[in-house]
Amino acid sequence: MPDQSIGITLLGCGVIGGGVTRILQEQRDLIRARTGLTLDLIHVVDKDIATPRPGLQIPIHSDADKAIDDPRSKIVIELIGGTDAAAKFVDRALRLGKPVVTANKSLLAARGPELFALARQHNACIGFEASCAGGIPVINALMHGLVANRIDALVGIVNGTCNFILTRMKSHGWSYAQALAEAQKAGFAEANPAMDVSGRDAAQKLAILATLAFNVRCAEPDIHTEGIDKLQDIDIKFAEELGYVIKLLAIAQRHGPKISLRVHPTLVHRDDMLADVAGSFNAVSIYGHAIGHTLFYGRGAGQMPTAGAVVADVINVALGLTPLAFSQLKIFPDQVPPADLLPHQELLSRYYLRLLARDEPGVMAQVTQILGQRKISLSAILQHEAKDGQFVPVVITTHQAREGSVQAALQEIDHLPSIQAPTACLRIIDPPKEFSAP
Amino acid sequence: MPDQSIGITLLGCGVIGGGVTRILQEQRDLIRARTGLTLDLIHVVDKDIATPRPGLQIPIHSDADKAIDDPRSKIVIELIGGTDAAAKFVDRALRLGKPVVTANKSLLAARGPELFALARQHNACIGFEASCAGGIPVINALMHGLVANRIDALVGIVNGTCNFILTRMKSHGWSYAQALAEAQKAGFAEANPAMDVSGRDAAQKLAILATLAFNVRCAEPDIHTEGIDKLQDIDIKFAEELGYVIKLLAIAQRHGPKISLRVHPTLVHRDDMLADVAGSFNAVSIYGHAIGHTLFYGRGAGQMPTAGAVVADVINVALGLTPLAFSQLKIFPDQVPPADLLPHQELLSRYYLRLLARDEPGVMAQVTQILGQRKISLSAILQHEAKDGQFVPVVITTHQAREGSVQAALQEIDHLPSIQAPTACLRIIDPPKEFSAP
Repeated sequence: MPDQSIGITLLGCGVIGGGVTRILQEQRDLIRARTGLTLDLIHVVDKDIATPRPGLQIPIHSDADKAIDDPRSKIVIELIGGTDAAAKFVDRALRLGKPVVTANKSLLAARGPELFALARQHNACIGFEASCAGGIPVINALMHGLVANRIDALVGIVNGTCNFILTRMKSHGWSYAQALAEAQKAGFAEANPAMDVSGRDAAQKLAILATLAFNVRCAEPDIHTEGIDKLQDIDIKFAEELGYVIKLLAIAQRHGPKISLRVHPTLVHRDDMLADVAGSFNAVSIYGHAIGHTLFYGRGAGQMPTAGAVVADVINVALGLTPLAFSQLKIFPDQVPPADLLPHQELLSRYYLRLLARDEPGVMAQVTQILGQRKISLSAILQHEAKDGQFVPVVITTHQAREGSVQAALQEIDHLPSIQAPTACLRIIDPPKEFSAP
Repeated sequence: MPDQSIGITLLGCGVIGGGVTRILQEQRDLIRARTGLTLDLIHVVDKDIATPRPGLQIPIHSDADKAIDDPRSKIVIELIGGTDAAAKFVDRALRLGKPVVTANKSLLAARGPELFALARQHNACIGFEASCAGGIPVINALMHGLVANRIDALVGIVNGTCNFILTRMKSHGWSYAQALAEAQKAGFAEANPAMDVSGRDAAQKLAILATLAFNVRCAEPDIHTEGIDKLQDIDIKFAEELGYVIKLLAIAQRHGPKISLRVHPTLVHRDDMLADVAGSFNAVSIYGHAIGHTLFYGRGAGQMPTAGAVVADVINVALGLTPLAFSQLKIFPDQVPPADLLPHQELLSRYYLRLLARDEPGVMAQVTQILGQRKISLSAILQHEAKDGQFVPVVITTHQAREGSVQAALQEIDHLPSIQAPTACLRIIDPPKEFSAP
């Protein structure tokens, strides 16, 4: 077969877009040698055409419609971000039957089913590897390598900003505010970090990954989401003393026919591979009925890792692999039934509770009685000798208990006159069992 | 598109084959829901047809030729192992244009280029995900997810038997012989463990992975291979004291246009994710120019993990994805030029040397002089107070040095009258640099 030249249109030439242009230009020979494809960047579109882009070999312009409509433009890369202009241009490309490659998890989280249906209707397809966990090819693994596995659980560190902040809080003993400021200085956090630290970014990625893993439609509102913005450094220290590391985990788990979906700061045992995922790295643990535990680790963000995933998608589209998978597999958000969700109150988990208790007799008796009444049994208690002050922190870890029972118990505990509310409540993850029952 | 029924022939129904029949039978609905495919097991062939196979829903027979030739047989799974009968039947299937799925790394290592060429000639293809690192979809990642990356290094723990033995030597303080006996008892090592403990199994897998990663033909004889069978427990303890864990690593690394290929016991720093890979688990670290460091972790052997990879390959063949990739990508052993190998003597590495030195003045001066003459500079020295006996172990770690220089120095050192030969020599791996120069 003769070498094929494929015209590529790039919409959005910011950090990631700059990485994409670099790979397409610098790795042209490598890509041609591996695939026989010549990927020709024919349009680079950005609303900012004033900023110089050193190294870019073609002129930049701002007319996205013209670029999309150009008959030479065979694949459209959307790196604009957000859900407004991006949605409009993706829509336009798909209606013309042009495959779209995107890193835009917000767009897929908000309008995934609709866009996938539109792509299908027009014989186009969507490549979205870069939307979750940056350069880590975990979407590819779910679609192909793990396709013979019934997935039992997916547990990920999928937000590099939060992981950077949590790693620094632990290693440097910093407060959340200090670590956030450092993350912003180092370029790992946006000026407005709300999407990251609130857990929303992780929830959007979880919706995409869980849809592919469990073959049910998962959307952001289905996900119980807590961020790291209220996390206190004292809890990171106590966790460490107990043998745990606190990570923001995105968790999707199968409970018979039901699925639980959640994002929250979680105590991970230090022997778990996820505990070692440091700084801005990401990792996704997947538990399949045949493979057992598998984990994919790498850079979840950043210019070149994400750009590498985008260009891989472009290549797989151009080779015809993505269009074929898109037309054959029945796992995409427009094809699967809505998730049958386990109500969050019914979740079974172990818990970490950190109370501020008045240093006087009888307080722990009251607390343990409230927990006992709700069938919450204690696993460990940790209290250091009080130095001064009326209130001392007391940490309690529990055996498996119902989320609803724990929340109700906390309401009661926080009304005790000897307790200074609010009691900190975090969940502890026990690694999902490998090879669990069907 | 209506659901498609695909006839599957399984050759070899041992442990892995049993797992494949289980998945095909038990996950029939899941596979149909995800892919639209009905995978029908139509022949199960084994030379042993006497052993009962509970749960198998079709009769077993021993006529491989008949099974392969059956026109209903659309995909042939080869799980016979070895290079004799397996080669004959794979050859037969490919000549009939039938895609083959195999877990047989020995066969691919011995006859890969020839079989891939044969497949190409007859419009067939070969799925071989299960041949390396069992259930971990790392071949899929190299072929698709990482396709836009120039790969700079691949470092893997790819033999579960060796990793089980090394983990037990470290955690239980066992000798090699004790740990091997335990591995055999636990079913993690064969009665004849030579393929595993000699490093040959790992070398065969490295040949396959390195070919895909670097797009050059790598064969087992190209690989400098040392096993774990001469490893002493004292070195595991010294390594631990220095902050390292000893792992059998398979390493392929790019040095400009040249490639180095090697399998040997290696000191891995305890902060490296590979140091945490315990028991029979496998992991492969890949360093790409865009993604930086990424790691794939999971079970590298065992019935269900390997069977899951085999069935995934069957699905990807049946969907047309593997045939398309096989015809489009130019990365297979029959298509790529032979590797331009870095001579092993020219390798640069850090080294761990453990000498047995007579406890008398002047010995270390002689040793360090020999090292210094060959431009081998010391990084650390570790010697405990001698209790009794004339010879005491002295551990030296070096900065980067040439393999050839180190071997020459050792020859000289081992001839010193104050040294009891042979000096133990292990390599220390520094994690390959992320984002290294082109």
